[in-house]
Amino acid sequence: MKETKFDGSVVALPDTVALDDERSALVIIDQTQLPRRLELIALTEQVQIFEAIRSLRVRGAPAIGVSAAIGYYLAAKQLVNCGDKSIFFQKIGAAREYLASSRPTAVNLFWALDRMQNVTDTHSNLSVVEIVTKLHEECLKIRDEDIESCRRIGENGLKILGRSRNILTHCNAGQLAAVRYGTALAPIHLGHERGIDFKVYCDETRPLLQGMRLSAFELAANGIDTTVICDNMVSSLMSQGKIDAVIVGADRIAANGDTANKIGTSGVAILAKYYNIPFYVAAPKSTFDMSTPTGKDIIIEQRDPSEIGELWFSEPLSPDGAKTYNPAFDVTPHELITGFITD
Amino acid sequence: MKETKFDGSVVALPDTVALDDERSALVIIDQTQLPRRLELIALTEQVQIFEAIRSLRVRGAPAIGVSAAIGYYLAAKQLVNCGDKSIFFQKIGAAREYLASSRPTAVNLFWALDRMQNVTDTHSNLSVVEIVTKLHEECLKIRDEDIESCRRIGENGLKILGRSRNILTHCNAGQLAAVRYGTALAPIHLGHERGIDFKVYCDETRPLLQGMRLSAFELAANGIDTTVICDNMVSSLMSQGKIDAVIVGADRIAANGDTANKIGTSGVAILAKYYNIPFYVAAPKSTFDMSTPTGKDIIIEQRDPSEIGELWFSEPLSPDGAKTYNPAFDVTPHELITGFITD
Repeated sequence: MKETKFDGSVVALPDTVALDDERSALVIIDQTQLPRRLELIALTEQVQIFEAIRSLRVRGAPAIGVSAAIGYYLAAKQLVNCGDKSIFFQKIGAAREYLASSRPTAVNLFWALDRMQNVTDTHSNLSVVEIVTKLHEECLKIRDEDIESCRRIGENGLKILGRSRNILTHCNAGQLAAVRYGTALAPIHLGHERGIDFKVYCDETRPLLQGMRLSAFELAANGIDTTVICDNMVSSLMSQGKIDAVIVGADRIAANGDTANKIGTSGVAILAKYYNIPFYVAAPKSTFDMSTPTGKDIIIEQRDPSEIGELWFSEPLSPDGAKTYNPAFDVTPHELITGFITD
Repeated sequence: MKETKFDGSVVALPDTVALDDERSALVIIDQTQLPRRLELIALTEQVQIFEAIRSLRVRGAPAIGVSAAIGYYLAAKQLVNCGDKSIFFQKIGAAREYLASSRPTAVNLFWALDRMQNVTDTHSNLSVVEIVTKLHEECLKIRDEDIESCRRIGENGLKILGRSRNILTHCNAGQLAAVRYGTALAPIHLGHERGIDFKVYCDETRPLLQGMRLSAFELAANGIDTTVICDNMVSSLMSQGKIDAVIVGADRIAANGDTANKIGTSGVAILAKYYNIPFYVAAPKSTFDMSTPTGKDIIIEQRDPSEIGELWFSEPLSPDGAKTYNPAFDVTPHELITGFITD
């Protein structure tokens, strides 16, 4: 299953998710191996693609959607010689159900599979070979739309950032959550391609440490000046004038602009306000949820206590008898957000 | 060396540092075993006391001072039958030098040893037995003064807290840094003895996790309702009205009230201001440094990067090529501090 193994000397990351049509493979960066090992894995069987989504080898809404679309296309390609068109329709429907069950709460997974199924249904009068060709086009289109959306966020972000060079980010809304560029980190990656020297500080983002393990990894791997800090060091940095701007991603943006994002985001926004530093939220238009009036209407998931006291550690560090509070997200009130950077 | 081993069912912690005169032993809670194991260890030899201070089995300025004073007394007691008074003076002087070298940057260590040596010098006309008796009194006095100082902070804190019951604290300024009660946690421990039901939230306090490993341990072990949170969850809690007041300790307080304390403290103070929650600093008068005009004059120690990316983890989690920023302290401007709680 393992394809390539890189050392720490990478200066440009490959796409997080890619189609290798010659080998009929979905090629992904195995994120469970980060940040110690950069491994590209080539997945040719449906069971491998299912497992990669389920066990978070690929993660982030856009990256999961593109992976599922490519997975659907590969399933169809394997059926191209099945002989009977009705068997094709039956088996591709089953493949869709199978992939959809890999992560039942990932909305983007269903959205991408629905788009693929819709191509199959629309072209049911064509031959199987012709349908597979249409599906090939569609999965590449879904991939390209994601890259283009992130690139536009990057372009808009670069304009908004102007001469700001010292950027703080929280969690991972980067390339590793999408195909290329990412959302919050798109202006950084795109600017870096054009020779702009950013200095990026990554909150480690407890308890899951996505800032240290993922954001700092993808930035450093692309050759960008990257510094990891603990979440409680933001005020110290800002007080010394070391941060020009903050950019974060978003999980959901309510109609009034209140933004749900990884736990800790609202605290960073309050500190930015106190120190008079602009605070931007970068996200595609699809993140805006006009059916949710305000942040008060967003329900916050509470996660397992062991993430705080046990995960990552060589022995449990939370004392017996102490409880934990472990919300996945918080809501940043719109009045703390300087602006939204969208596609 | 091991004396007693408790399970998680403790409901009242013993003193962090104690003299067992019958067995001629310094008895301490071995803090390197926390929070998994509560072990009291009885140290009878100078080399054991030296090692306990050096390897942080006992930590916190007051606890180190009291340990050194008891260590000095025990050294004198062992010399009571040395026969020759000049040999006594020579050997007790050597014992003092030896203990002083256990942690060369701990000001309180020298202060306590100087007080003990001063008793020896002042009573040099008495017999060795009489001098040892004076030293016994002096080390208990140093211990009692610490307990009394913390108790007064507790009394004053209880008055200031009034009807506040939901308290947030950062790092460990608790009993484990002193003999009993602690500073920031003194009102909680003292109030709990009197039947007041506090609910205490402990920031885990990255990277060294003193809040999770030590504060949450000592509070839960005393039967107090204790919840561990990651440092980035403070804003989420405060936004829900779950915090009535914040109490933290201090490493140094400048003449204008600017306060150096564990990294992250200033961020908590800014959040408290934003959410209109009182923010108190609890510390003995000796923490006020009138020779330092403002916080700008306090130099902040930078610590080892491995504390962020490697310590505690079963494998390193900071990516190759990424730097870290790891200040030990930050400075909270006086205008963010609602009040000081002193002895």
